[in-house]
Amino acid sequence: MEEKEISKAVIRRLPRYYRYLGELMESGVERISSNELSERMRVTASQIRQDLNNFGGFGQQGYGYNVKYLYDEIGRLLGLDKKHNVIIIGGGNLGQALANYPAFEKRGFIVKGIFDINPKLSGRTVRGIPIMPMEQMEEFIRENDIQIATLTLPKTSATEVADQLISYGVRAIWNFAHTDLNVPEGVMVENVHLSESIMRLSYNLTRYEEEHKSGKKEKK
Amino acid sequence: MEEKEISKAVIRRLPRYYRYLGELMESGVERISSNELSERMRVTASQIRQDLNNFGGFGQQGYGYNVKYLYDEIGRLLGLDKKHNVIIIGGGNLGQALANYPAFEKRGFIVKGIFDINPKLSGRTVRGIPIMPMEQMEEFIRENDIQIATLTLPKTSATEVADQLISYGVRAIWNFAHTDLNVPEGVMVENVHLSESIMRLSYNLTRYEEEHKSGKKEKK
Repeated sequence: MEEKEISKAVIRRLPRYYRYLGELMESGVERISSNELSERMRVTASQIRQDLNNFGGFGQQGYGYNVKYLYDEIGRLLGLDKKHNVIIIGGGNLGQALANYPAFEKRGFIVKGIFDINPKLSGRTVRGIPIMPMEQMEEFIRENDIQIATLTLPKTSATEVADQLISYGVRAIWNFAHTDLNVPEGVMVENVHLSESIMRLSYNLTRYEEEHKSGKKEKK
Repeated sequence: MEEKEISKAVIRRLPRYYRYLGELMESGVERISSNELSERMRVTASQIRQDLNNFGGFGQQGYGYNVKYLYDEIGRLLGLDKKHNVIIIGGGNLGQALANYPAFEKRGFIVKGIFDINPKLSGRTVRGIPIMPMEQMEEFIRENDIQIATLTLPKTSATEVADQLISYGVRAIWNFAHTDLNVPEGVMVENVHLSESIMRLSYNLTRYEEEHKSGKKEKK
């Protein structure tokens, strides 16, 4: 399958295709047309065809998509056919919640260790995963082929820790800290800014309430 | 300040402006030009001017933006000048992590209660917030003016619980369940799909590794 330059918007949608195809497989569906997939996913059929054409096209006119084939190919594009070793920096509630989340391991994201500045947490484990002091991070990364570092830290320390991680060879950072990281080229950052997410919800709720209070017609 | 129809992309960026303006205030900056803000936020100055013009324009040519004024106005647009009562459905690790997160309360999102199907959790508290059985949810929502419900549930029960919440009058759902919710008009959903987020990171990492392995030039 030939791979062209893919837009960020398509990449954003890929995991969602993967999820829907997984659900279809679970319910025993073997083939699906772009029209049927469109109805389920609530996007237009032409967008589906266009998105999937980016990857060389998987469908045959009149036959629809082979669900298993498409699922496997998108999984391969997403790198889910390989294992990724993960560490979590920050052993607080969120760090522990992520370490406990079984779905990540199922997808090949294996949490190998958790690091925290609080010496009281050292020696504890979460689902068998050890919590270690920050001083052991460098050696651990080099010895355990760590590819992804998850930051669940206060924003005040996130920048410094990210710089350390990069100097130890980490190339992908999953950032939950409430700040933007400036990283060199070749280092990937995926942000999960939870505060911004709830603010968007609050924005929409506030607009809705104001429109209804003032009796204006609701916007689409 | 006049409010026009604002695009989703602008709304996505608003909380980020709010964060940067908050940081500027903390460091004592009173005025900032779109050029300076542009450098810090790594977006173009013309995008900043265009975005903020959506809200009637806050800047004066040659004088830049008044940081405090802009911060307060964006906060008001985001509904942060009001308190929002929140419940969390799912008292597992993630639910507890969110209940423990002090930044939400600082922004006016007050977690009033946590609900869980596990009867063993009932009666416990997280940061003083009670965990209650699902049977008490309806009454609690009606009596505590709950506006936002946070779903940290398995996808198998998320749809059913969302329907219940909506029938009890909840208008905003912060959805961490790994599924899309179909909601009627007038109900707001903000999704945080963590699995999809880590898959995007994995996609970028995989592409990078393949390009480097095959000796191709790196894509921007």
